[in-house]
Amino acid sequence: MTHWIALDWGTSQLRAWRMGQDGTLHDHRTSDRGMGSLTPDAFEPALLDLINDWLPSDAITPVIACGMVGAKQGWCEVPYTPVPCVPSQGSTRIAPTLDPRLKVTILSGLCQTTPSADVMRGEETQIAGYLAQHPKFDGVICLPGTHTKWAHISAEEVVSFQTFMTGELFSLLSKYSVLRHSIAEQGWQQDAFSAAIDDALSRPAAIAARLFGLRAADILQGQDPAILRSQLSGFLIGLELSGARPYWLGQDIVLIGEPGLCELYATALNAQGATVVIEDATPMTLAGLTAVYETCKGQTA
Amino acid sequence: MTHWIALDWGTSQLRAWRMGQDGTLHDHRTSDRGMGSLTPDAFEPALLDLINDWLPSDAITPVIACGMVGAKQGWCEVPYTPVPCVPSQGSTRIAPTLDPRLKVTILSGLCQTTPSADVMRGEETQIAGYLAQHPKFDGVICLPGTHTKWAHISAEEVVSFQTFMTGELFSLLSKYSVLRHSIAEQGWQQDAFSAAIDDALSRPAAIAARLFGLRAADILQGQDPAILRSQLSGFLIGLELSGARPYWLGQDIVLIGEPGLCELYATALNAQGATVVIEDATPMTLAGLTAVYETCKGQTA
Repeated sequence: MTHWIALDWGTSQLRAWRMGQDGTLHDHRTSDRGMGSLTPDAFEPALLDLINDWLPSDAITPVIACGMVGAKQGWCEVPYTPVPCVPSQGSTRIAPTLDPRLKVTILSGLCQTTPSADVMRGEETQIAGYLAQHPKFDGVICLPGTHTKWAHISAEEVVSFQTFMTGELFSLLSKYSVLRHSIAEQGWQQDAFSAAIDDALSRPAAIAARLFGLRAADILQGQDPAILRSQLSGFLIGLELSGARPYWLGQDIVLIGEPGLCELYATALNAQGATVVIEDATPMTLAGLTAVYETCKGQTA
Repeated sequence: MTHWIALDWGTSQLRAWRMGQDGTLHDHRTSDRGMGSLTPDAFEPALLDLINDWLPSDAITPVIACGMVGAKQGWCEVPYTPVPCVPSQGSTRIAPTLDPRLKVTILSGLCQTTPSADVMRGEETQIAGYLAQHPKFDGVICLPGTHTKWAHISAEEVVSFQTFMTGELFSLLSKYSVLRHSIAEQGWQQDAFSAAIDDALSRPAAIAARLFGLRAADILQGQDPAILRSQLSGFLIGLELSGARPYWLGQDIVLIGEPGLCELYATALNAQGATVVIEDATPMTLAGLTAVYETCKGQTA
């Protein structure tokens, strides 16, 4: 029996979890109908295509959704909640639905105006999940990804955060720049990565020259494309760590994300003497959606 | 009467000048058949399509070509000449031609292995052109563009140089990243540009966060896309100037390039107390090719 449904509806993907009584996970499905490919009236059909058989006919099933589904270009815009705030208690909106079996609650993201303009949408739910499991946590949560987030957590609140375009820069440079001729799609050399991290931490301003140096090393020395890939990653993550130093220096750090990517950040931070804990993103998302569901349920009762 | 033909044959364009006696310029033509779209056997037909009627039938016309035409993927590879070297005296190769009226000399680019691997192909001819007109120049030449070059010049030689991927980063970020939704294709706000230059010079490590901040300023504040464009340019040029400080600090600086882009660099460098001279790239290229032609002619005689 489905008690409620959890959704992580991002730009390129929709993931759904069928939840039973007392937090039991019954099923899990994924669809490629992300927010980026849908017009507003296509969200409900896309959702029903994925989970129609999970819905009891004689009840209204609560659905809790986080991610870009709540953006301006999404199903129904949910304005950002300003920090400082408890990430599981941001604003929400009920999406317009035709099917009487559905009640879809969409979560807001977080925004910040000072010290710098910034937004997140989706990551706040992963943070909420971690805080549901570690309510006394005080420190820094980093969520590596396309747009890596660094969040300062205190007294259960996100106090401030900053986004770095590191993952997107890696993707653009390795796929679309002149470096695409030189950078391997696979392969890794840990020493080259670590040396590049050190270089970027000590000379962050040289990044645009270091990038072209990768191309030159290929042309002049036939450098191994896997080494160049590791160096590109190291230069960009090192640049980020240099800019994010006020966040991580002397702090307890939790990394939430894809485990392989988190390992890279952990290696780099460990080399700087920082201690980190790694959490996989998916269970954190589910824990965050569960925390919001429990709150909603309490309010309805 | 055509005495010789000058060619600037880059990745995306071929430009040809018909030269008469004593440096007279008779004609100028441009074709979109750049090196990037040609296989090795297609270079001679592409050249003849453009300048066939310039060739006297009863003589061999010297053609001097610089640029990517001499790259590994070009007409005929001309290995890079290592620095330090006089830029008009790099190595050359005669391209294989079928038409008996042609003698095509292709110039090499420059390479450097220490302190960092680097290459240039085409810019050395612009530098040679400037030095032909200012043989006593001692200082720094900066060539802003897709891959901006900074070259240290002493005793008529290029002593060392460094390439920054600034122009390519601007293009990638404004066309392919999440910023493409926010950045104007046109429009400019000089104060926003100057403030971004200052910010990047004082905090270069924050660049990846500053980039996402442009997107957030659009989402949260509906920031003017022309201001965001000016800021993106300022952050990237400021980052480069921070990394290139050892080149320009306390030096006489010559900027060679597209005049509008050179003006941006000049504004930024002037604000740092540096004095600059701007030269348009095209006459420098032609002066450099002429210097090489004069040398070749002397050797043949």
